[in-house]
Amino acid sequence: MKIKVLGAAAGGGSPQWNCRCPNCISLRNGAPGIEPRTQSSVAVSSDGDDWYLLNVSPDIRQQIQDCSELTPPGNEPRGTGIAGCVLTDAEIDHTTGLLLLRENANFRIYSTPLVRRWLNDYFPIEPIVSAFVPREWEELSLGEPTALVSGKGKASTLRVTAFDLDTHPPLFAKAHTGSAEGSVVGLIVEDTATGGKMVYAPGVEAITPALRQAVEGAQLFFMDGTLWSNEEMITLGLSQRTGLDMGHIAVSGNDGSLQWLAGLDIPERIYLHINNTNPILDTRSDEFRAVRETGVRVATDGDAFDI
Amino acid sequence: MKIKVLGAAAGGGSPQWNCRCPNCISLRNGAPGIEPRTQSSVAVSSDGDDWYLLNVSPDIRQQIQDCSELTPPGNEPRGTGIAGCVLTDAEIDHTTGLLLLRENANFRIYSTPLVRRWLNDYFPIEPIVSAFVPREWEELSLGEPTALVSGKGKASTLRVTAFDLDTHPPLFAKAHTGSAEGSVVGLIVEDTATGGKMVYAPGVEAITPALRQAVEGAQLFFMDGTLWSNEEMITLGLSQRTGLDMGHIAVSGNDGSLQWLAGLDIPERIYLHINNTNPILDTRSDEFRAVRETGVRVATDGDAFDI
Repeated sequence: MKIKVLGAAAGGGSPQWNCRCPNCISLRNGAPGIEPRTQSSVAVSSDGDDWYLLNVSPDIRQQIQDCSELTPPGNEPRGTGIAGCVLTDAEIDHTTGLLLLRENANFRIYSTPLVRRWLNDYFPIEPIVSAFVPREWEELSLGEPTALVSGKGKASTLRVTAFDLDTHPPLFAKAHTGSAEGSVVGLIVEDTATGGKMVYAPGVEAITPALRQAVEGAQLFFMDGTLWSNEEMITLGLSQRTGLDMGHIAVSGNDGSLQWLAGLDIPERIYLHINNTNPILDTRSDEFRAVRETGVRVATDGDAFDI
Repeated sequence: MKIKVLGAAAGGGSPQWNCRCPNCISLRNGAPGIEPRTQSSVAVSSDGDDWYLLNVSPDIRQQIQDCSELTPPGNEPRGTGIAGCVLTDAEIDHTTGLLLLRENANFRIYSTPLVRRWLNDYFPIEPIVSAFVPREWEELSLGEPTALVSGKGKASTLRVTAFDLDTHPPLFAKAHTGSAEGSVVGLIVEDTATGGKMVYAPGVEAITPALRQAVEGAQLFFMDGTLWSNEEMITLGLSQRTGLDMGHIAVSGNDGSLQWLAGLDIPERIYLHINNTNPILDTRSDEFRAVRETGVRVATDGDAFDI
């Protein structure tokens, strides 16, 4: 399975358009040790031709330009390397890119029933893009593998299994009622041809038994790396919300994710969905070094893996 | 009045993600004579501090990074040079950027009542962004000047007047009923302090008396430059739709816009909203030379003017 990081940043990217935190200032000044990152998305492929996006960020146009595998292949006047899109939640920074892929190419979109319903109720991507090209939307049942099939009906050897992670609705859907099952999921992607297994979890509120089970036997694990500390945004004077208020466990601390990741027997453990404020983005920081000392990576745009 | 071109391309930008037309191939190959362009938007300011966007493209994050005037000014932890946004229509490539400006900054949005209604009915940007930060939305009456006021309530010396151009609803709103007045407007922007006058018209179906009247006395005019010829997309095998089907008059021909522009007594006449297929994007083309010989410009991202 081939894996490409299209974007490694949390919502807003880094730099974020309206932010003057130390990382954003460094990025605008071209300081050494820190690279710009677009909003989080990963592409996976079994054959190197048909690519499935895990979330579709608002930066998808720039991400396609920077990833030759996704540009139009062959000799047809219009085309794409994108064979399908899988959503982990209904957040704007994970779904808006679908609007930008509206022209002249068919592919299937996969999400939980709840994510589809929230989008249709509050942010109706499905009818908007279907006014351009009809889209099939396949619902993922938690814990059940679903085969990924291209827009042209070509089966891949990839299958995706969603597992429940979190019950955070997007801010725009906060008036919702009913079950929150499937609000925020992680994705297990397996290649039945090779036995490759990766896990994608950009929104993790707690290290739950379901998450521990999902990563067993994985060769690669993308983990939510939003904030270094739970109060980071408040300390910097940028927000009144903690990481947990936003549905994101901190990297550091006894309850943080790094301590857990450090002990996991997974060859590639990688922080992704990293907020612009997180000091691990700066390779000169103590926090970056602390992460690297455990063998965990900090994702950058363009990182490529083959498992 | 200071004017900056944030993006000069039509919807999709150039290159467009899924397109293999000659221009898109040249751009991916880094050929000389043609530059990448993001999706159309222009920023205007009377004082150089508070900037008003005319349309907000999906590429706004990249456009802000490339335009230092729009990055956070002063010393506040979060801020922006964007004081307000004015919409000419409800198209995805002119409005989606509003979703990306949802965090932590208040500013007013201006549109016709019909554009606001279509967005609320089909693409509910207003409630989505208001879940993050409340937004004031001011409706523009056709032919009546509206003063532009910043999100902090600071008056500018700019006033904007919308005039009717076209009756094309966006594809996602094609089921609409009722009057089409205000579907697609042009904008006259005047600086009452200096007498500066510019006109912004990215969607022009025909050279109407209203358009002729609007540009009288203007020092600068951004004109719809979508296609060179009406059948361009069909000839290239990319679409079944003519330019007029999409609401855009061609540049060339006896009924085209270039012949009209050539005779206008306006110091700066500039094509903008240029489709990736249009040969005027390539400075080595005969079509580019034909435009330049009339004194008309072909906009590129980053172009700046002061009138």
